[in-house]
Amino acid sequence: MTLPLQGVRIVDFTIMMQGPHATQMLADLGADVIKVERPYLPGSRPEIRYGEHGGYGRTPEDSTFAPATFLAHNRNKKSIRVDLRQEKGKEIVRRLITTADVVYQNFRPGVLARLGFGYEACCQINPSVIYASATGYGPEGPYADKPGQDLLAQALGGFDAINAGADGRPLAIGFSISDLMGAVYGAFGVLAALYHRQLTGEGQQVNVSLLDSTVAALSEVAVHVLNTGREPHRGTPMHACAYMAPPYGIYRTKDGYITISGGHKLADLSKVLGLPNLADDPRFDTYAKRDANRAEMEAIIERALGDRTTAEWLPLMADADLWAAPVQTLAEVFSDPQVLHNGMVVTVDGPFGPLRLPGVPYKLSKTPARIRTAPPLLGQHTEEILKAIGYDEAAIGALENEGVI
Amino acid sequence: MTLPLQGVRIVDFTIMMQGPHATQMLADLGADVIKVERPYLPGSRPEIRYGEHGGYGRTPEDSTFAPATFLAHNRNKKSIRVDLRQEKGKEIVRRLITTADVVYQNFRPGVLARLGFGYEACCQINPSVIYASATGYGPEGPYADKPGQDLLAQALGGFDAINAGADGRPLAIGFSISDLMGAVYGAFGVLAALYHRQLTGEGQQVNVSLLDSTVAALSEVAVHVLNTGREPHRGTPMHACAYMAPPYGIYRTKDGYITISGGHKLADLSKVLGLPNLADDPRFDTYAKRDANRAEMEAIIERALGDRTTAEWLPLMADADLWAAPVQTLAEVFSDPQVLHNGMVVTVDGPFGPLRLPGVPYKLSKTPARIRTAPPLLGQHTEEILKAIGYDEAAIGALENEGVI
Repeated sequence: MTLPLQGVRIVDFTIMMQGPHATQMLADLGADVIKVERPYLPGSRPEIRYGEHGGYGRTPEDSTFAPATFLAHNRNKKSIRVDLRQEKGKEIVRRLITTADVVYQNFRPGVLARLGFGYEACCQINPSVIYASATGYGPEGPYADKPGQDLLAQALGGFDAINAGADGRPLAIGFSISDLMGAVYGAFGVLAALYHRQLTGEGQQVNVSLLDSTVAALSEVAVHVLNTGREPHRGTPMHACAYMAPPYGIYRTKDGYITISGGHKLADLSKVLGLPNLADDPRFDTYAKRDANRAEMEAIIERALGDRTTAEWLPLMADADLWAAPVQTLAEVFSDPQVLHNGMVVTVDGPFGPLRLPGVPYKLSKTPARIRTAPPLLGQHTEEILKAIGYDEAAIGALENEGVI
Repeated sequence: MTLPLQGVRIVDFTIMMQGPHATQMLADLGADVIKVERPYLPGSRPEIRYGEHGGYGRTPEDSTFAPATFLAHNRNKKSIRVDLRQEKGKEIVRRLITTADVVYQNFRPGVLARLGFGYEACCQINPSVIYASATGYGPEGPYADKPGQDLLAQALGGFDAINAGADGRPLAIGFSISDLMGAVYGAFGVLAALYHRQLTGEGQQVNVSLLDSTVAALSEVAVHVLNTGREPHRGTPMHACAYMAPPYGIYRTKDGYITISGGHKLADLSKVLGLPNLADDPRFDTYAKRDANRAEMEAIIERALGDRTTAEWLPLMADADLWAAPVQTLAEVFSDPQVLHNGMVVTVDGPFGPLRLPGVPYKLSKTPARIRTAPPLLGQHTEEILKAIGYDEAAIGALENEGVI
C-alpha cells in the first residue's frame, strides 16, 4: 500500500527524544529517514549496541531507561554511521543532503552550523531544502544558549504548575510530555512545509522549541489565565482539573479507582450512588458552590463509592448514561480490548527478538501510516546508503579503514 | 504572506475541544475553516453569545470555564449557523461540501451519518473529500458507543497511572491533554491526507480517537512497560518521572521551587550545594542505588537547597553548567521574556475587546502560521458564506424567515 510520504527523504541528525520522535512520525508516514549517527565511542561494544543506548533486554547499570529512549523514537528509520568531524564524513553528508527534502536536527543552536551543516550551508547544497531545528527555547532570545530538556521546559512552561496536586507542590507530568509536544508540533510544521514545497518548490526553515510547545499545549489553560489572570489550583486529591467543579474527578472505590466526568447529571449520579439529590443540597446547588465546597461534596461521593468495586459501579453508571471509566494501570491499558482492537500495540522483529511498540493513533483509510521496521542497529544501513549515493565497495572499504564510517 | 494551506477549505462540524482544536491548527496554517454551528437555542441570547458558550468576560453562573473552551479552539475560523435538521439546511451544507477539501467532525460514531453527512454521503457529494472523524475510542470495537471525553480517556489510556503522585493515588494530568493529543494527531493525519491528495487527487477517511492518542503519547513509557512489564511508580514528592533516579526532580528552595535534570553531573551538583560528593556516597554511588535510596538522597538535596532562594541558586547552577530551571506559575510563564520573545502570547481584536491567545509553536520561516482573526461570533459569516456558494439576498432572507439559518 502507498504511504503518504513515500519518496520524501529526511536526513536526520536528531538525538534523544524531541527530534527523533518527530522524524519517526514522518517515517511512520513513509518518509525515507536516514539517521546520521556517530561512530563507535572508544570502549563501546558495538556488537551489542542497539542504536546509541544499548540493547533492549540489556540494562547497563547506569541506563535502565536509556534503551527505551532509543527504541521509542527510531522505528522505520535507517542508520548510517559517519564521523562528522572528518572531511570525508562531511562529504558523505553533503551528498546525502543533495538527495534530501528535509534536514531535521535538534542540537543546541549553532552546533550543527559549526560542523558545516547550518541552514545556509544546506541551502548551498540543496536550495529547496526544508531545514527543521528543534531546540529548548528557540534559536534566539534570552534563553537561546541555555540547556534545553524536558523537565526544565515543563517547569518553565507551566506544566508543573497546572499539574500541582492538592498540597500545592508543583508536580511534573510523569513522562516526557514537553519533548513529545515539541516532536509532534515539529513534525506538523515540517509536514506543512512539505505541502507548501510540493505546490511551489520552495523550501524553508522550521523552528520548534520545548518551551513554545509546552506553552501552546496549555491551550485552554493559557486562554483562561491570559484573560482572567486567575492562577489554577487543585484543592483535593480527587480534583482532576483546576477549572472543573465536582463531581468531575477521580474517586476511590472498594477496590480501586473510578473517574467521573459529565457533572451535568448530578441528580442521576446521586440516585445511582444511593444519595439524596446533591443538586438540591444548598451546599452544592450551583456550580460555584460545588467548586467552593468541593472537599465536602467529594468526600460524600467517595464514601458512597466505597460500597462497591469499580467493576460493579461501571455498569450501574452506564445504565444511567453517566460518564465514568475505570482508572487503568499501564498493564491494563496494554491489554485493554479497545486498545488492542485499534492496533495500538504492534510487534516488530528486532535484532534481539520481538519488540512491542505503541501503534499509530491517526488512521488513514487508504494510505495508513504503519510500523514497517524495528529501530535500526547503529550503522545498520551505512553500506546500503553509501552505495545508493555513489560510493563503490572499494571507496566504502577505504572510508571504513580511515574511521570515517 | 502566503500561508501553507491557503486555498484549502474545511467544513468543520466539530464541538468542544478534540475536533475544534484540530481544525484550528489547520486554520492557523491558512485553511479556510467554516464552522457549521447550530441555530439559536430557544431562550438563548444570541446578541451576547460568543460562539457556543457565552462571551469571554461574561461568566454565566454554571460555565465559568466554558468561554475559554470556545475561545481556545476556534480562532482563524468562520462561523455559519445552519439548522441541519431541515432539508434546506442540509442543502446548504451539501453545497459547502461540494467546495470543500476536508470535512472534520467529532460527534459520536454514526451521529453525523444519521443527519446525512457520513463519509459515503460526503463522497457522493465530493468524491475526493478527506473525511476526518475524531471520537472517544474509534469507530468500531467494544467501546465505540461509549461516551468519550478527556478525563475518561486519561483514565483508560494510562495518563492517571503514569501521573500518580507519591501516595500512589492516580492523578489526572491537570488539563485536557487527551483532547489536545487527539487534536494534534488528527490535524497531523489530515495534513498527511492533504499531501497525498495533492499528489494523487485521492481523498480518504482519517480516524483518530482520544484513547489511541493517549496511548500513543505514552511513547517511551509504552515501550518500557510493553517490553519489561514494570509498572511505573513515583516514590516521593520530588520524583518527577518514574524511570529517572535523583537528582532529577523538583525541590523546595528557601522561597519556592527549582527543578533539576541532568543527573550525570552529581559531583558538580554536590559542590554547588556545599555537600560532600554524593557520587562517592555508598548509598548513592550507582544509578540503581540512587533510585532505591531516593527518599534519603532527595531529602539531603532539598535540605541544602533550603538555604537560598530559587533566584540565588539559578546562577550558581548555571555557572557549574548544571541543568536547572525555576518552576514558574502560569502568570510567570506568560510574562517570561523568552515566551514573549517567541511570540507565544498574541493579542487579537475580539468583539468584546482585546483577546489574548497562545501563539503558534512551530515557526515556518517563509509561510508562518499566524493568528489572523478572533474566534467568530455565532453565525458571524452566515451571509458571506451563503453568498459565496450562490445564495442571493432574497434566498438568504427566506432561509432566515424559515429558521434555517
